[in-house]
Amino acid sequence: MIKLYYSPGACSLAPHIVLEELGIAFEPVLVSLKDGEQLKADFLRVNPKARVPALVVDGKLLTENVAILTYLGGGYLSRGLWPKETWKQAEALSLISWLASSVHITFAGIARPERYTADAAAKETVKAQSLITLLKYFAEIEKMLAGKTFAMGGQYTVCDPYLLVFYRWGYRLSLDMKTQFPNWTKHALRVASRPTVKRVFEVEGIKIDG
Amino acid sequence: MIKLYYSPGACSLAPHIVLEELGIAFEPVLVSLKDGEQLKADFLRVNPKARVPALVVDGKLLTENVAILTYLGGGYLSRGLWPKETWKQAEALSLISWLASSVHITFAGIARPERYTADAAAKETVKAQSLITLLKYFAEIEKMLAGKTFAMGGQYTVCDPYLLVFYRWGYRLSLDMKTQFPNWTKHALRVASRPTVKRVFEVEGIKIDG
Repeated sequence: MIKLYYSPGACSLAPHIVLEELGIAFEPVLVSLKDGEQLKADFLRVNPKARVPALVVDGKLLTENVAILTYLGGGYLSRGLWPKETWKQAEALSLISWLASSVHITFAGIARPERYTADAAAKETVKAQSLITLLKYFAEIEKMLAGKTFAMGGQYTVCDPYLLVFYRWGYRLSLDMKTQFPNWTKHALRVASRPTVKRVFEVEGIKIDG
Repeated sequence: MIKLYYSPGACSLAPHIVLEELGIAFEPVLVSLKDGEQLKADFLRVNPKARVPALVVDGKLLTENVAILTYLGGGYLSRGLWPKETWKQAEALSLISWLASSVHITFAGIARPERYTADAAAKETVKAQSLITLLKYFAEIEKMLAGKTFAMGGQYTVCDPYLLVFYRWGYRLSLDMKTQFPNWTKHALRVASRPTVKRVFEVEGIKIDG
């Protein structure tokens, strides 16, 4: 029995897509961040960290996207969403770990500067610096995807829906994703065109650019 | 042929200890962060990200501590530094991912506030807020280690040397680690008493509290 607690368009989108791709039975449970549902008693009983994604398998909780994505990809290895070779697995883990600890964290500096400072004026400087850093990271992603079908090469892996999360977030920041990041745009459209991804977008009520 | 690029007492300490524990041949290569050696051409040719740890295996680079620790622990599973059961592996990965993307990142807000803001006054507010967040995380670690021999229970895993990194950093911030975090102190002393860890401390020229 698998439950995924998600909020529309949050980074929980990645494991949501992966679960759909795996074709295994799971229940998506909506926890709307914009309505503050992550702070309500019902959800805090599930995940005291008040964050999504939270994966519950047979009543046991797993948090942190890197762990959830690797557990799903590696735990269902035969479904082909995780590399089979040890070194390639390490490279995939390196990529999603970087996305979690550098790219995602830098977004937080823009969307949730209160995590970094309590001062109103300082918040604006944190947002500004975070945007500079984020654009540097986005340029790295753009370069990484040059000439590639998927992040790990020819194989579609859990890394690809995770990249799609941050591509969508680029639109939230009103970045001109198509012009500035053409390789990444091709990649994002390729991922978003999968029937599984379309189904998840419909469930979450989101589009690639909003 | 394995090379580990490290700086004394940096988070590269964790894979340095793990390599020593595995008992496999490797070459530790000093890249002194305090002397800015990570920014010199020699090292940038190895790791353009200018960060340690960098693991090079047969000429191939692996970055991100989460990936390096999991590769070493999981890739040498018979050495016993990584859980054997899938769910336990997911839990170990969740812990080290949290340490990388929450605890380490929050330290950066204190030690390298320039990553978050370019403004001098704002830097001080970032440091102050980061310390508040860090103490909350340290309290979570203290609670997690209550009544446990090691982070994952009875088994010593790659999670334990990674925790030791942040325990030592607590001293850098002049926190009273012994009084405020007694469970973690017992854990840190247990890890630091291992002959393998003592050897690495000697190579890096560090102690548990400095």
